[in-house]
Amino acid sequence: MLIVHKYGGTSLGNTERIKAVARRIKSSYDQGNRIVVVVSARAGITNELIARAKAVNPNPDRREMDMLLSIGEQETIALTAMALHALGVPAVSRTGAQAGIRTDLKHTHARIVDIDGGDILQQLEANRVVIVAGFQGVNEGGHTTTLGRGGSDLSAIAIAAVLEADLCQIYTDVDGIYTADPRIVPNARKIDRISHEEILELASCGAQVLQSRSVELAQKYKVPFEVKSSFNDNPGTIVQTEMNSLEAALVSGITIDKNQAKITVSALPDKPGSAARVFQSLSEADIVVDMIVQNIGREGLANLTFTVNRGNVDRAKEVVQQALQDLGGGHVAKTGDVAKLSVVGLGMRSHAGVAGTLFECLAKAEVNIQMISTSEIKIEVAIDVVQAEEALCKLHDAFGLGESTTTTS
Amino acid sequence: MLIVHKYGGTSLGNTERIKAVARRIKSSYDQGNRIVVVVSARAGITNELIARAKAVNPNPDRREMDMLLSIGEQETIALTAMALHALGVPAVSRTGAQAGIRTDLKHTHARIVDIDGGDILQQLEANRVVIVAGFQGVNEGGHTTTLGRGGSDLSAIAIAAVLEADLCQIYTDVDGIYTADPRIVPNARKIDRISHEEILELASCGAQVLQSRSVELAQKYKVPFEVKSSFNDNPGTIVQTEMNSLEAALVSGITIDKNQAKITVSALPDKPGSAARVFQSLSEADIVVDMIVQNIGREGLANLTFTVNRGNVDRAKEVVQQALQDLGGGHVAKTGDVAKLSVVGLGMRSHAGVAGTLFECLAKAEVNIQMISTSEIKIEVAIDVVQAEEALCKLHDAFGLGESTTTTS
Repeated sequence: MLIVHKYGGTSLGNTERIKAVARRIKSSYDQGNRIVVVVSARAGITNELIARAKAVNPNPDRREMDMLLSIGEQETIALTAMALHALGVPAVSRTGAQAGIRTDLKHTHARIVDIDGGDILQQLEANRVVIVAGFQGVNEGGHTTTLGRGGSDLSAIAIAAVLEADLCQIYTDVDGIYTADPRIVPNARKIDRISHEEILELASCGAQVLQSRSVELAQKYKVPFEVKSSFNDNPGTIVQTEMNSLEAALVSGITIDKNQAKITVSALPDKPGSAARVFQSLSEADIVVDMIVQNIGREGLANLTFTVNRGNVDRAKEVVQQALQDLGGGHVAKTGDVAKLSVVGLGMRSHAGVAGTLFECLAKAEVNIQMISTSEIKIEVAIDVVQAEEALCKLHDAFGLGESTTTTS
Repeated sequence: MLIVHKYGGTSLGNTERIKAVARRIKSSYDQGNRIVVVVSARAGITNELIARAKAVNPNPDRREMDMLLSIGEQETIALTAMALHALGVPAVSRTGAQAGIRTDLKHTHARIVDIDGGDILQQLEANRVVIVAGFQGVNEGGHTTTLGRGGSDLSAIAIAAVLEADLCQIYTDVDGIYTADPRIVPNARKIDRISHEEILELASCGAQVLQSRSVELAQKYKVPFEVKSSFNDNPGTIVQTEMNSLEAALVSGITIDKNQAKITVSALPDKPGSAARVFQSLSEADIVVDMIVQNIGREGLANLTFTVNRGNVDRAKEVVQQALQDLGGGHVAKTGDVAKLSVVGLGMRSHAGVAGTLFECLAKAEVNIQMISTSEIKIEVAIDVVQAEEALCKLHDAFGLGESTTTTS
């Protein structure tokens, strides 16, 4: 098998961990696999470098920032290769540029435009493990670029796509992806297999997995990947494109985001484009709107309620206020903090009844549903923040997601 | 003027020093100069990185070592560019590879084979200061190489040669080159101007200036350079090729090397190639032989006395012992520690009398001369280690090298 391993900063944080990573790679190599390893910078160094940059210039140039930040992975690729050599495993390191990871010109948040792989295939052919610097690439001017947050995962998925790898293993500090946050739901279960689509919905609901752009890339190029721990040998969660209906779970996971707040616009002038104008002004102010509900109130004037991240609520209110002045009418008010509860599952496509179970469960728990939003494989509701964790636990049970545990009733 | 500045690791050791370097560059830039800056890694980081490498692999691969070590300068070029931006000076950083510094394949001690300069000239044309990573280059396979000890000075001189710079300023932690070590000779004087040739002789005699290979390169391409302090604004020492006879000092400087030991080979078989065989075996063992004296002893057998670095004396004796066995005769013995005292001056070429002054001065001081060796612009003598510093001071006075000071007699 051709496998791409990806190790994050905590997995490479010190000498002992680098050696442990090397042993893990050797074990897979000894099983006859061809291996490309994508590594991040060691934990903490990026913040260190940013602090040094800000000390000489509070507003550092983005190109020079990329020149500076890219040294983080250059350190870990060299050390990882050396650690493999110490175990007798032939290995070579490659910077992003040497691996032919070409990006656009946007320093500090570049997009990958093409990967030619450099000499990776020849090196694999010669039985060498190839260690590639994640997070970085090179633009057409020959300047080093970086890919922004989550960039190393993106590098790994992209390289796996180009090499048509059999699997991309994302090593991290968690055992995999869970049906719900185990800190809130003690009997949350690790998911064995799940689809790209579901992971995308879970990621967009705040589940701390991979960034959406990495999953989208994996989905686009049908790259199967596994999220697993670099601290033990437990199997992780396999994320793949093709799921037959038997495998597809009715509900795969449930998330809550307790950091939402509602804004209500009442008596919005009833003319075409009023609502569009409101949301456009928010978008121009870089404020992400999440759930939206519109209804027609008294005298034919529309009411609009939507949620934003709680940190943006005051700014959002100001922006809307301005938009309403331009529209010549309407009122805007903050209408309280809410939690967003999202139920995600591929099986919803072919099975009815998920919404019914959800409503029934919440009704029994006396949780009032303030807003509802649905997509093909997701149902989201806005509820009282205080009830959010309890609601999550009850729904987790109602959909039978938990580990089978002995309970005393 | 087109000026190449070179800053070493102590000049870039922390944020404040990087800012001070940026102010110095700005001041030269504001005078209308076009400036290329070559920087080393900050002091200490190379040792840090080597320690990290040895922790994962006691015998790290040289290619990976270069990948690792080259991040040191990549950090300082980015930070120096940012610091210049903060002062409103347009600047861009370039790695060794981006500056087109091409080397041979010898990782960790590569030799520069060619410099195409990348886009340095265009950047200068656009009024930007160009910050180039010293110590590093790229080989024909696209792999990062490093130039070994003193490599950043070499990069600076080589870039100055290729760009035909008017001056290469080597900023360091000393004010310039002195007529003798000021720690031993309190009234040693900073030299204003000196020739490449003399500096080469002084460097080979242990004066802590630039490595010989940097000076040789400067000499070959007639690059004038100035050694000066990055901690004050004092003029430094200008090293240049063309010196008219009025400028040429009879004696420019005097050095002592107290770390030499004598070995004497007696009754060496008197056949062609005997001495060559002895020195060849030492060369093969990587032992540098310094002064050599040969004379014919009793019964036509040759005696050979030479000096080596004291740390090599036991190994040298063993090597010679082996060679003598192969030659079928002769004895070898360690014949004591000595100091080498070297008097260097371009004026010796055209003026007689230096040797006379030297012998007279040492005779008066009751210093016994054990060996003598001369070149066109240098006289070296081996003397008792205990008398070395006193002899240095007396010669320094005898050649009138000191600052004019008021002395109480």
